[in-house]
Amino acid sequence: MHNGSHISTVKHNVSTTQRWRRNGHTGGILWLTGLSASGKSTLAMALELDLFNRNWQCVVIDGDNLRQGLCADLGFSPDDRAENVRRAGEVARMLAESGIIVIVALISPYQSDRDRVRRSAGSLFHEIWLSAGINVCETRDPKNLYKKARAGEISEFTGISSSYEVPNAAELTIDTGVLDFQESLKVLRGYVERFAFL
Amino acid sequence: MHNGSHISTVKHNVSTTQRWRRNGHTGGILWLTGLSASGKSTLAMALELDLFNRNWQCVVIDGDNLRQGLCADLGFSPDDRAENVRRAGEVARMLAESGIIVIVALISPYQSDRDRVRRSAGSLFHEIWLSAGINVCETRDPKNLYKKARAGEISEFTGISSSYEVPNAAELTIDTGVLDFQESLKVLRGYVERFAFL
Repeated sequence: MHNGSHISTVKHNVSTTQRWRRNGHTGGILWLTGLSASGKSTLAMALELDLFNRNWQCVVIDGDNLRQGLCADLGFSPDDRAENVRRAGEVARMLAESGIIVIVALISPYQSDRDRVRRSAGSLFHEIWLSAGINVCETRDPKNLYKKARAGEISEFTGISSSYEVPNAAELTIDTGVLDFQESLKVLRGYVERFAFL
Repeated sequence: MHNGSHISTVKHNVSTTQRWRRNGHTGGILWLTGLSASGKSTLAMALELDLFNRNWQCVVIDGDNLRQGLCADLGFSPDDRAENVRRAGEVARMLAESGIIVIVALISPYQSDRDRVRRSAGSLFHEIWLSAGINVCETRDPKNLYKKARAGEISEFTGISSSYEVPNAAELTIDTGVLDFQESLKVLRGYVERFAFL
């Protein structure tokens, strides 16, 4: 049978530690989870610029962009969301092992899906909850998505017609409903510096 | 409906060009295609070490490793192989756009699947055919896979019970059935230098 049982791991000639030493920082996954409009993408892209400017190696995996590429075949059912999160997690792990700081901006509403990434990536995984609540996010509604969800024009919308499970053991919580953008970025930046500085 | 039509692209604050300038080289995808035992993984890992030592940013996406992570849900039917190649291609494109040289080591036996990656990644995509033929590869057979495939212990095995479509317009062909490892690596390295040096 060709069930993959004959597949063996191919080893790299460059170790993760060598890569970290060369880059001057460790790799890791900053997994930003939270409701739509909680600030995930904005903070991810701002942090990317910040790290780039200090010469760090950094990649953003943004949920909306994934949906147009790697995960274009997936919908928004619980199963498809699970697979979406699994794929993002596998890519993030691979990159973090390559010495890169990976910033993932993804609603990732279910605890079990986030926990699976944590099991796969181990200590590379940092769950960061942007905890702005539904009221704040719905008031902001920069892309009118909540409005459309309330009107029934978008189904399975997280916070309205699909659930969001609050992280039960996030490494960091940033209340983006209270802190403004610059304050939130500062907290996030401080966290990265603590774990990634060699 | 939640069919994804409301998804919009999130823009990065750091451009691909800025990343290239900072890294001192362009990003790109070196897509190594060829039969099992044609030398894909060995060359990929050797080139990775080589580029690392000259301080370039480089990641290997190896087919066997993908099968244990991102693509662990896929088998070896034509449809599953297509999806395997599609996912590898999407990840590779994302990374190449982030300024990284991505070395993909993947049998990727069908022209249509490779062409889809080419369409998606545009000029970042470099199709590199390791053209060692079935006779050479089967004689080498370092993991006894051909032997198992002949014995019917592995089904849908490329070159034996599943087809390999020779690239019709590869950017580079390396006859790894004739050139030895060091000679092949030299050709590959020379190619990378021509396209990636700024």
